[in-house]
Amino acid sequence: MYEGIVQDLIDELGRLPGVGPKSAQRIAFHLLSAEPAEVRKLVHAISEVKEKIRFCEVCANVTEDALCRICRDPRRDPSVICVVEEAKDVVAVERTREFRGRYHVLGGAISPIEGIGPDDLRVRELMTRLSDGAVTEIILATDPNLEGEATATYLARLIKPLGLKVTRPASGLPVGGDLEYADEVTLGRAFEGRRLLDV
Amino acid sequence: MYEGIVQDLIDELGRLPGVGPKSAQRIAFHLLSAEPAEVRKLVHAISEVKEKIRFCEVCANVTEDALCRICRDPRRDPSVICVVEEAKDVVAVERTREFRGRYHVLGGAISPIEGIGPDDLRVRELMTRLSDGAVTEIILATDPNLEGEATATYLARLIKPLGLKVTRPASGLPVGGDLEYADEVTLGRAFEGRRLLDV
Repeated sequence: MYEGIVQDLIDELGRLPGVGPKSAQRIAFHLLSAEPAEVRKLVHAISEVKEKIRFCEVCANVTEDALCRICRDPRRDPSVICVVEEAKDVVAVERTREFRGRYHVLGGAISPIEGIGPDDLRVRELMTRLSDGAVTEIILATDPNLEGEATATYLARLIKPLGLKVTRPASGLPVGGDLEYADEVTLGRAFEGRRLLDV
Repeated sequence: MYEGIVQDLIDELGRLPGVGPKSAQRIAFHLLSAEPAEVRKLVHAISEVKEKIRFCEVCANVTEDALCRICRDPRRDPSVICVVEEAKDVVAVERTREFRGRYHVLGGAISPIEGIGPDDLRVRELMTRLSDGAVTEIILATDPNLEGEATATYLARLIKPLGLKVTRPASGLPVGGDLEYADEVTLGRAFEGRRLLDV
C-alpha cells in the first residue's frame, strides 16, 4: 500500500511489543513529519543502548559497567538476594524503597510450553552466589502467575536444603483496589493470608 | 531509576504517539535484549524514511520521488480530486479500491483551538490545481469530526463558485456494525441520509 521504505518502517515498528499495525502506521507517520533532530535523538538513544548497555556480571541487571549500580553499592545488604524474572522487575522493586538487599535476574521463568527449563535461566549462577555462605535469605519475587509460581517452587526446593530462609512476597488484594473487582483467586489468596489486626 | 542511557531511550520512546511510559519501558527492554541485527534493521528503516521520503510536489502525498505513485499514474482520472487531511488517509481511501481519481493532502484540518487556519493548510495549492479547468469534481474526504466538517464547509464555499461538483462521503452506520451501539449523531445522520430501496 505504501511506498516501499515507509512500509518497511511500519513493518519494523510493528515487530515491537505492544505495537499493532495501526500504532505502527501512526508512529511511522509521526516520524515522517517530525523534526529531523527529534528523530536523530531517538535513533541515537536506541544505538547508545545497544552499544553500551550490558548485563551485570553478578546479578544480570542492566548496566553500563561490569557491575550494576546495586551490586557496586556497599550500603546494599549482601545477605539478602531478591530473585526476579527480568531486569525491569528490579526497577519495580526498587520503586517500593522497601528492599535494601541485592538482586538476581533469572532472565525469564520456567515454561514447559515455551520450552524454557531451569538450564535456560541463570539458576546455576544463583547457586554459585549462594555457595559462599554470605547469603541468609532469598526472596523469590518471580511473577504471581503460573510460570512464576512454578519457578519459585522449583527454586525453593533447590535452595531450602542449603538451610537458607526462602520467602515469597504476599499475594492479596491490591492496595487502593476494590474488593468486588478482585478475581476469585486473588481474593482467595487474600483470605488465606489474612492477618490478625493488632488493635 | 534506570541507568542514564536506558532512561534516555524510555523518554524518547515515550514521546511517540500512543506510547505511554509502560509501553516505552517494555519496548526499551525488548530492544535491550533483541538481536543487534534486528535493532539495526529498525534504526535503518527510521533513517531511510527520514532521508528519502518527501512530499509529492502536486498532492503532498508521501513519496520517494518528486511526484507520488498516484500522481505519476496516467490511468488515474485527473478530473476528480479527493481532498484528505493526512497522507495516511490516502492509504485508507486506496484500500477501498473505489476511487480512481487523484488526491490532495491538506496537512491537517482547520482548528481555531489549535490555532490552525486555512493558511496553515495546503488550500492555496489546491486552488491553483483547480485553476486549469481539468478538474470537474472535488470530494471533500476530511474526517467526520468537528474540525473535518468545518474544513469541508470552508472548502466547499471556496470551490463552489468555480462551478465544480463538490461532494462529501456519506455519514451513516458502519457496515457490519450494530444499530443499538451507534451513537445518536451517527444514527441521526444515517436516518437523514436514508435511501430508497430499489426492490
